[in-house]
Amino acid sequence: MGNRYIKINENDNVAITVNAISAGTMIMEGIVANQDIPQGHKIALYPIPEGGAIVRYGVTLGYAKQPIEKGDWINEHMLELPIPPSLDEMKFGTNLVTDLPEPPARTFMGYPNPDGGYGGTRNILGIVTTVQCVTGVLNNAVKRIKKELLPKYPNVDDVVAINHAYGCGVAINAPEAVIPIRMLQNMVKHPNFGGETMIISLGCEKLTLEMLLDEEYNIQENVVTFQNEMGHVAIMEAIMNMAENKLKKLNKRVRVELPLSQLCIGLQCGGSDAFSGVTANPSAGYAADMLVNAGATVMFSEVTEVRDGVHIIAERCVNEEVGKKLADEMKWYDQYLNNGQVDRSANPTPGNKEGGLSNIVEKAMGSIAKSGASPIVEVLSPGERPTKKGMIFAATPASDFVCGSCQLSSGMTLQVFMTGRGTPYGLEAAPVIKVCSRDDMINMWQDLIDVNAGPIATGEATIQEIGTLLFNEIIDVASGRKHTFAEQYEIYNDFTLFNPAPIT
Amino acid sequence: MGNRYIKINENDNVAITVNAISAGTMIMEGIVANQDIPQGHKIALYPIPEGGAIVRYGVTLGYAKQPIEKGDWINEHMLELPIPPSLDEMKFGTNLVTDLPEPPARTFMGYPNPDGGYGGTRNILGIVTTVQCVTGVLNNAVKRIKKELLPKYPNVDDVVAINHAYGCGVAINAPEAVIPIRMLQNMVKHPNFGGETMIISLGCEKLTLEMLLDEEYNIQENVVTFQNEMGHVAIMEAIMNMAENKLKKLNKRVRVELPLSQLCIGLQCGGSDAFSGVTANPSAGYAADMLVNAGATVMFSEVTEVRDGVHIIAERCVNEEVGKKLADEMKWYDQYLNNGQVDRSANPTPGNKEGGLSNIVEKAMGSIAKSGASPIVEVLSPGERPTKKGMIFAATPASDFVCGSCQLSSGMTLQVFMTGRGTPYGLEAAPVIKVCSRDDMINMWQDLIDVNAGPIATGEATIQEIGTLLFNEIIDVASGRKHTFAEQYEIYNDFTLFNPAPIT
Repeated sequence: MGNRYIKINENDNVAITVNAISAGTMIMEGIVANQDIPQGHKIALYPIPEGGAIVRYGVTLGYAKQPIEKGDWINEHMLELPIPPSLDEMKFGTNLVTDLPEPPARTFMGYPNPDGGYGGTRNILGIVTTVQCVTGVLNNAVKRIKKELLPKYPNVDDVVAINHAYGCGVAINAPEAVIPIRMLQNMVKHPNFGGETMIISLGCEKLTLEMLLDEEYNIQENVVTFQNEMGHVAIMEAIMNMAENKLKKLNKRVRVELPLSQLCIGLQCGGSDAFSGVTANPSAGYAADMLVNAGATVMFSEVTEVRDGVHIIAERCVNEEVGKKLADEMKWYDQYLNNGQVDRSANPTPGNKEGGLSNIVEKAMGSIAKSGASPIVEVLSPGERPTKKGMIFAATPASDFVCGSCQLSSGMTLQVFMTGRGTPYGLEAAPVIKVCSRDDMINMWQDLIDVNAGPIATGEATIQEIGTLLFNEIIDVASGRKHTFAEQYEIYNDFTLFNPAPIT
Repeated sequence: MGNRYIKINENDNVAITVNAISAGTMIMEGIVANQDIPQGHKIALYPIPEGGAIVRYGVTLGYAKQPIEKGDWINEHMLELPIPPSLDEMKFGTNLVTDLPEPPARTFMGYPNPDGGYGGTRNILGIVTTVQCVTGVLNNAVKRIKKELLPKYPNVDDVVAINHAYGCGVAINAPEAVIPIRMLQNMVKHPNFGGETMIISLGCEKLTLEMLLDEEYNIQENVVTFQNEMGHVAIMEAIMNMAENKLKKLNKRVRVELPLSQLCIGLQCGGSDAFSGVTANPSAGYAADMLVNAGATVMFSEVTEVRDGVHIIAERCVNEEVGKKLADEMKWYDQYLNNGQVDRSANPTPGNKEGGLSNIVEKAMGSIAKSGASPIVEVLSPGERPTKKGMIFAATPASDFVCGSCQLSSGMTLQVFMTGRGTPYGLEAAPVIKVCSRDDMINMWQDLIDVNAGPIATGEATIQEIGTLLFNEIIDVASGRKHTFAEQYEIYNDFTLFNPAPIT
């Protein structure tokens, strides 16, 4: 048996337990558990007085509500949340790491895109809708396309409808409506759709074709409008005809060797536990640093999980302009939550807490670990497309499906998803590699988790080893040599727009 | 050829055109069109000075921005929106109509429910999810259930998953979170699901089983939790086993003759035009009054489409308490829109305007027509269940799919949907009868529109005739003797929660 505890920073006055332990167990010289402690939960390494700082990752997670004895189990009820870091006094560019780890590869096999954008990892007939009204008919059409047409075009992987709850019955001119509209505009251009996206519209909706599409794309070859067709049978026929034309073109796409500068991946975590920040997330960070070193674009996200560590991210921003946008995105979200009478403490879930994460500060420190050490070259508003290559903070909600959808809109063609508690999460428009934080998880879900970072907790593997393994997995999946479990079982979450504006 | 114009109230100084007319056409004695006027658009019957009231339905739609000549086409750019009616000085109970039209039937053939609630119109295996995370796996399970199990249980009509974007990554303790949570709680109890709803949960989400379910329903027979199962294959097996058990029970349900007091229907309009308020909506109102006379529950909704006519609705509220809740719901929505920096004028769509509806006042007057003349016995917050029978204002957004989902949560088992511009809209958990407002629409979409109210515009049928026809259609569809076009083609919109609270 390997480690019994994990202490991360020399200044920490707590450690987490590798396994559940009973009261009386000695976890290290001089530290005996005073109570039964669940797996991944914190144990006090020193006595902490009432009001004293509880420190993990070298960071104050919170202040003790009551005196804590050495060996005590520290749960979420024992911490007072600290005030979040100020957004107006951050230092930018003071921690720009240049010696990133050497990648084992610098190319992948992808689908080149004509407009010089990112290469595709899958070859998909994408269908973007202007409005939810068309969804019922379109879903039936997609079934027919998959059954009647797709088998004739073996180079095309799938047919994916981007259905959503937007497009009408919404305040389309509200200031925040820019977010969902931008997300849909950018989905039309997703690299996996190869410039042949079909557009399905009703005809009387608020999100007009003019708002959604570039002028040159708003032509008959690309758009079916239901109210221009003579009923259901005619609508279906119009969709089927367009699909066949598009499939013919997409079928000509072939994979070629592309530099990693044409790969755009996204990182996310969900259902995190106390191991996430020491196993799965740092492994992803290591793989991300290798990808950045090879010229790739890597996005990390989840505003409420960065908020409490924003000063650390700020120091990695390459310049004042990037840092300023980071602060702006954080302020926007602070205000958004405040409008709903909540704050960032609304983020953690019952599962996070069961998994040992006491509060949003502890969750944030683990979440940030996925971004590695690379300099941050750009900050994106939700659903914006990158203009730089390298490590990018793409501001999004932390909700798994909303973050995934925002990253898709930003052009992400493969996502790496770290989980502690386990989720079957998948996206239809891009493959998702799921990485778990502990052995128990993969032992339970061997047919849902692609990579296990658990051996890091028990000392049987290093972050570098799992990180390199994950890098290779990313290249294999991006190149179509491997398919994730979510792809094999076709487990796909709904595309979920972020709409902070009112509906009408 | 019948009418050339429709004038509604003797005080109106405008009429609408039954068909598109050319400049120079005389529509009635002394009124000649000064311009080409599209179908359903307004023509001035008298000169209107700058600042003068433009009156339709006997109500001021707005004030002329410039002088208008007799015979001029009045479009949406020519009206200044009036201030909305005050919510603090409304009169309640001053217009309580008791002589409602006599219904041709007082019973329907429905599925009785044990708890004394509304009867079902369909026999459905309903599956409610706690969180979007489970959707990918569940959708595959539903396909398997429909293919492998459903054919063995011929008395069961369908298998319906209530997927949604809620459950985690949301501010679950925000004040407004009560709305989406209530909607899901009430979907578990939907009359068409016969008390045998399956619950699918992940395990670490914020919307816990304890929050979703009554204590006695939160048992192993009703719930599959993914994180308690050993991977994907085991999860699928658990779902399939539970589905078979539930199908066995549901298969024993039989239709019996039920009084209409056990029927709960919803009314909605979408893609409205200037005819909606004179053909389809008043016909639905007439049918609704007959249903209420027979003891049924009829809900109408869409806050932003009632707001400008709220004083008319207030007069029909049976008492002060009902009227007070009406005012509260309107105030809540005013504030909700204001928080997003918009107001009720954000409601109308490009399609509404093309269809002749100049602004929200004109749209509201048409929208309210669907509620007939019945006294209003109750006002519901979004997704609440009725406690009274009769005409009910169920406050919801006007978004078709959100309103439909809210009404489903309130227990509606059949919806009547009026449309001017045309939408293929349908709901999976309850049949939707689509009624169009003009002949052109049904001529175009003969396989999507169930009932045509267009002959009222041309003078070839009366509101009473079409209303009676619609009443009979409602009884036939509710009784399972008829299936709507949306059901025949399986055209179903997504279940769409109303979540005014922030996501995290």
